[in-house]
Amino acid sequence: MSSGKMLVAQGGGPTAVINQSLVGVVLEARRFREVQRVYGARHGVRGIVDEDFIDLTQETSHNLELVANTPSSALGSTRDKPDLAYCQKIFRVLQAHEIEHFFYIGGNDSSDTVRIVAEEARQAGYPLRAIHIPKTIDNDLVGNDHTPGFPSAARFVAQAFAGANLDNAALPGVYVGVVMGRHAGFLTAASALGKKFPDDGPHLIYLPERVFEIEKFLADVQAVYSRHGRCVVAVSEGIHDAAGVPVLARLATELERDAHGNVQLSGSGALADLLCQQIKDKLKIKRVRGDTFGYLQRSFIGCTSDVDQREAREVGEKAVQFALWGDRSGSVAIRRTGFYSVDYDLLPLEAVAGKTRTMDDAFIADSGTDITDAFRLYLRPLLGSGMPDAFRLRGAPVPRALQP
Amino acid sequence: MSSGKMLVAQGGGPTAVINQSLVGVVLEARRFREVQRVYGARHGVRGIVDEDFIDLTQETSHNLELVANTPSSALGSTRDKPDLAYCQKIFRVLQAHEIEHFFYIGGNDSSDTVRIVAEEARQAGYPLRAIHIPKTIDNDLVGNDHTPGFPSAARFVAQAFAGANLDNAALPGVYVGVVMGRHAGFLTAASALGKKFPDDGPHLIYLPERVFEIEKFLADVQAVYSRHGRCVVAVSEGIHDAAGVPVLARLATELERDAHGNVQLSGSGALADLLCQQIKDKLKIKRVRGDTFGYLQRSFIGCTSDVDQREAREVGEKAVQFALWGDRSGSVAIRRTGFYSVDYDLLPLEAVAGKTRTMDDAFIADSGTDITDAFRLYLRPLLGSGMPDAFRLRGAPVPRALQP
Repeated sequence: MSSGKMLVAQGGGPTAVINQSLVGVVLEARRFREVQRVYGARHGVRGIVDEDFIDLTQETSHNLELVANTPSSALGSTRDKPDLAYCQKIFRVLQAHEIEHFFYIGGNDSSDTVRIVAEEARQAGYPLRAIHIPKTIDNDLVGNDHTPGFPSAARFVAQAFAGANLDNAALPGVYVGVVMGRHAGFLTAASALGKKFPDDGPHLIYLPERVFEIEKFLADVQAVYSRHGRCVVAVSEGIHDAAGVPVLARLATELERDAHGNVQLSGSGALADLLCQQIKDKLKIKRVRGDTFGYLQRSFIGCTSDVDQREAREVGEKAVQFALWGDRSGSVAIRRTGFYSVDYDLLPLEAVAGKTRTMDDAFIADSGTDITDAFRLYLRPLLGSGMPDAFRLRGAPVPRALQP
Repeated sequence: MSSGKMLVAQGGGPTAVINQSLVGVVLEARRFREVQRVYGARHGVRGIVDEDFIDLTQETSHNLELVANTPSSALGSTRDKPDLAYCQKIFRVLQAHEIEHFFYIGGNDSSDTVRIVAEEARQAGYPLRAIHIPKTIDNDLVGNDHTPGFPSAARFVAQAFAGANLDNAALPGVYVGVVMGRHAGFLTAASALGKKFPDDGPHLIYLPERVFEIEKFLADVQAVYSRHGRCVVAVSEGIHDAAGVPVLARLATELERDAHGNVQLSGSGALADLLCQQIKDKLKIKRVRGDTFGYLQRSFIGCTSDVDQREAREVGEKAVQFALWGDRSGSVAIRRTGFYSVDYDLLPLEAVAGKTRTMDDAFIADSGTDITDAFRLYLRPLLGSGMPDAFRLRGAPVPRALQP
């Protein structure tokens, strides 16, 4: 006999569309007569061990749709990564509530959490179906064409650089924008989708897939500045030297690491400021400005890809279908089937958990500071409809009256 | 006999709607049979002395409309502030081209430029009608209910804080967002329009209209953090101590000043990082994140208030009408006539030029760290239609099975 109880939770960094997946789970689950209750755990696995549940079955469809369109994790999130003891606590709670299906929406670390929980359940002989639902703006999950949340963040980055380029053209100088993405360059590379005219920025793109050398960087900036009288640069927060040491780590007096052993790369303007200072000092360029896009790129309300919204909804729906019609735990993955269409697979958790995808060489130009048309074709359909566009005066020149 | 030639230029920091004003001038001018040519100077007054003109009369209406919807200054901008010698050069060029009407779209400094140019023209006996068209995201022009460009930047800031608040609620901690605005707090105060529920952030707002004390700041943050378990803070880049020294200036090893004597307050993440470090060190709060909104807030493509767009167009149109039907130079100003409607005046240049408006006391709460309903009513209609909105799960609690 089945309890018909499901539990859903959200982990890791929020995205603009993570609530679409949550609502996809809840609304799809209601279509199955065997589902009695869908619970939500507040603040991820932390809410499970604390038994901090809300009954999502009691939400109205109207409010769920409004929440689906609201960025960030409506259930709250966590950075906790369960170890064995933590997982034993989780089981006790799941058993006590007769939870049969566990859905965890998250990235790398969350998929590993699902894997551990599923493994512990199996060892304990507890009949749990555990499904990882993908989400990360870093786009660094293996086995996925791309991950929900990335397209909307990429759209923000592309729009930001389109605007920064216009600003830089109006008041020329050097502009450095630092973008999230940890050890994957996808989000930084998205800056290139803000380019329209051949002389538009970003003129230089620095990805963590390539070694960063400050001397090369300065020479690149000088070359662009000499040619265009200005230079727009996109830099990944994860750039590192040949030894793999993050450029930022050289600066930080005190490295902040989270429970997963990740170096804290975001939440400070230090990297942009360091690079700007180098440009001022070494190249003697006066007008140098740096922005760190920070939390805006993952949380800004009102910059969402409609493609991303639909897919995030679908991975939630498919997760429920895989759980109820399938016979195994796993990780939902997006597979591209056309230009542009997708379908969804259920991958083994071990195939995804804890692994990091980075950019293919085919996406990175030989120069190492630009992306290829292959990447443009890859990303453009993900950005969705209604992308704002930039236009120029055609500028018929007026003959001088005084000067020759 | 009239040459029927006009010249338009854009000065100072670009905005999301400054090209609306440019296009308003060009299209309105074409409706007057006495106007033969509308020239645009590239990069503001710099383009005048360099005789770097384009003939805007040769642009198509279609492309002008596309440019109008593109952020940043399509003609390019400048930070140059003309002195007497500079103005004499300007006159020689204006005379040589038989320019009779000069329109300069800009903020405080640009209005002062127009005043000087008009004054020099008058002294030289040159028949120039010089009109200043208001523009600044800082909203610090006297004589205006508000300035074009401010509403769109305010919308960006409100949307950014609405999102940052959701992110901070999902992963609790302290978040500090630093906002532009120089010595006026309007843009920072706009962060409050991102609030919806009573416990939403920003919980604390620091404006340059009030003295900033680091001890008071830390106590405020601690109090909010103790109550909500989290804290979202909006800080103006222009905050200063009792002696009027910018908080940022204490840090900067080398103060960068532009030609107008303005301290460079933007383009660095130093202020956010300093405040975050203080919170970590003194309050021992672990999760502290800071963002400096930087150039995104004035250049981001795709976040514009439709009210702002329309008004920016109108100030350009009215400038041409004032020039051709009126009998004096001046500065176009927005006057609020209803909730919500506006009309336009032509103020004497001396009434606007070089003066700085700051927030009325009626807009600032007694606490000094919040805004009043008067400000909410002032700002809300300016943000325009289609503001994104945030929703929450209603959260029916599930009884615990294990814990009491």
